[in-house]
Amino acid sequence: MSGRVRELLKSHGTPPREVYLDNENSGWVPPEVVEATLPYFNVKGYGHPSITNKPGWEALELILEFKELLSSVINGEPENVHITHSGTEANNLAILGVKRRGKVIVSDVEHYSVLLPALTLDAVRAPVDEQGFIDLDVLSQLVDSETVLVSVQAVNHEIGTIQPVKEVYEVVKDRNPDALVHVDACDALGRVELNSDYADLMTFSSHKVLGPKGAGALYTKVKLEPPLKGALSTETLWPGVENVPAVAGFKKALELYLEDDLEELRRKRDKLIKGLLSIPDTLLNGPRDRRAPDNVNVSFLRVEGEAITVELSMRGIYVSSGSACTSRLLEPSHVMLAIGRSYEEAHGSVMFKLTRYLTWEDVDYVLEQVPEAIERLRNISPL
Amino acid sequence: MSGRVRELLKSHGTPPREVYLDNENSGWVPPEVVEATLPYFNVKGYGHPSITNKPGWEALELILEFKELLSSVINGEPENVHITHSGTEANNLAILGVKRRGKVIVSDVEHYSVLLPALTLDAVRAPVDEQGFIDLDVLSQLVDSETVLVSVQAVNHEIGTIQPVKEVYEVVKDRNPDALVHVDACDALGRVELNSDYADLMTFSSHKVLGPKGAGALYTKVKLEPPLKGALSTETLWPGVENVPAVAGFKKALELYLEDDLEELRRKRDKLIKGLLSIPDTLLNGPRDRRAPDNVNVSFLRVEGEAITVELSMRGIYVSSGSACTSRLLEPSHVMLAIGRSYEEAHGSVMFKLTRYLTWEDVDYVLEQVPEAIERLRNISPL
Repeated sequence: MSGRVRELLKSHGTPPREVYLDNENSGWVPPEVVEATLPYFNVKGYGHPSITNKPGWEALELILEFKELLSSVINGEPENVHITHSGTEANNLAILGVKRRGKVIVSDVEHYSVLLPALTLDAVRAPVDEQGFIDLDVLSQLVDSETVLVSVQAVNHEIGTIQPVKEVYEVVKDRNPDALVHVDACDALGRVELNSDYADLMTFSSHKVLGPKGAGALYTKVKLEPPLKGALSTETLWPGVENVPAVAGFKKALELYLEDDLEELRRKRDKLIKGLLSIPDTLLNGPRDRRAPDNVNVSFLRVEGEAITVELSMRGIYVSSGSACTSRLLEPSHVMLAIGRSYEEAHGSVMFKLTRYLTWEDVDYVLEQVPEAIERLRNISPL
Repeated sequence: MSGRVRELLKSHGTPPREVYLDNENSGWVPPEVVEATLPYFNVKGYGHPSITNKPGWEALELILEFKELLSSVINGEPENVHITHSGTEANNLAILGVKRRGKVIVSDVEHYSVLLPALTLDAVRAPVDEQGFIDLDVLSQLVDSETVLVSVQAVNHEIGTIQPVKEVYEVVKDRNPDALVHVDACDALGRVELNSDYADLMTFSSHKVLGPKGAGALYTKVKLEPPLKGALSTETLWPGVENVPAVAGFKKALELYLEDDLEELRRKRDKLIKGLLSIPDTLLNGPRDRRAPDNVNVSFLRVEGEAITVELSMRGIYVSSGSACTSRLLEPSHVMLAIGRSYEEAHGSVMFKLTRYLTWEDVDYVLEQVPEAIERLRNISPL
């Protein structure tokens, strides 16, 4: 099986220029972030943070420092930060961990790691408009005395919609002060302002801020029942030994991410959007305003998303698509469908997530290659 | 909070010689293993293994290679290997994921990540003898037509008992061919022979073979219902993006671990056991024969385990204890109690897990320092 992939890679070769833009699904981890993880493998803090020996205390010190940093970013308390191994796990903990049973409400465009656990609890889906913004009036009508949890992400992971989480919080609490508000802030951290005053629970992910995979965090003001069981350490809500090197990387990545020049990101985003929309029959997915500074998502009509990702890969441009062919569920992106895109429009969607490592030359290269690629694919496409 | 730990570490200082022996709870990761993870952060395979672009295919290739390696070690099929983020998660998946509901049986000395999820299913605990071996006659009586799952670890994580998993498998299937057998092989991989012929499910952990934290695996021949939900990728039983660098490290670590000289480990183990037992009022925990080649566990009477870990840390020897004071549950190790140790005996227990990086000079250093440490603590102890 691995041999077939090896053959494919051999025939692919390494393009002269490589531009990674699939930072939503995975991430190129900056060397200085990797550097920050290294001591924790075998120089210091390689111990168990609950064991009373030097490598253990060093691990504990790092974990506490991370919690101080993350909580300071959201105006919160370090002891409310709970570490997991991924954002997906933190979202599962938030949704499945709420002890009180009752009505759960999630927006229609939540990440699967919120939506799917919520659906096991028969969650109600709150609709969004054609740019992905939640309808606050409908939400207000949905919240009732039986409601225990409302989950709305701060920034949509596919189309970059910045949700009005403060207003969501106020609408929910106005209708039912006991209902908890969970904010999936994975794509929002370091990109929009976040304040724990307007959430009972908040999710974060290391790899979404260019940290290594292996660490996520849930901020919670309320007690939860962990869905997994095992030996506990500093983390009382997620069993098993803490991935300390990953936490060290998350910490360093976040420090760097917070220094990003968002205005520059926005300019690159806007240049990309403008250039891509000049390709005929191309639609912007998500809003123009109140859009995350690093998100570009467009649909190329009459082209299939997976074909685009492969064609662009040959040109050294690495992206993903909301096409059904790139999904294990064999359905196009539920986000695309929720904002009213047709199947065809969803099939041709391509997401680009920008980072500070994307240069203006990269932007120009993308804008040179993508039109050629789309034209070529349209010429050979049966659609 | 982190300031207090920093003060403690400052007063601790760095001992001239450091010997890490807490490899059960955490692990010192060899530089060559860390090296193997590095390309996957930002040179190749940093993509999402289900996305059709070059960094994604490279990630997929690595994952398939890992599954081929792990399955070959246990005479199994690569497609039965499912990756999680830890051994604890793989154990939870095994225990909570079995779809059929009915009687669950676990040995009395299982790791918490088996025991605690099993207890949520009202599991029956099968007793062990004073060396930790499961009683096959009692097990046979416990297995009935209602039994859906029996979980027995291959090597005990605290006292190194090598369970007769083949006999366990035969006893269970003889009584009920439909009952599944789960083998927690975290501490057994690379230490005792393992064969997937004698298990329906098997758990593995990267950090137990000196790999990085962030990867575990469950081998399963049966379909499971994952306890967490989210976006699926190559892994259909654990949601969220695969921690590819950790899998690369797990692979490299396992390759090296399989080359370990077990006879040499046994000689070091036996020299340590002999030397430690020459300290007055010291008991060996676990068997002399059929004991993992890397496990040493002794109880020093009239000393408290946490005091020992701190005293030895000052001397550069890093160990853990089954004392209640080192447990978040404020109970001494359930393994110690299950083999009939008294609370006092459990409180003074200390575990040493050896690796190929432990030199004969380290062994001599440990045997020089531990007697001094125990004598000093006994002299100042109120016990």
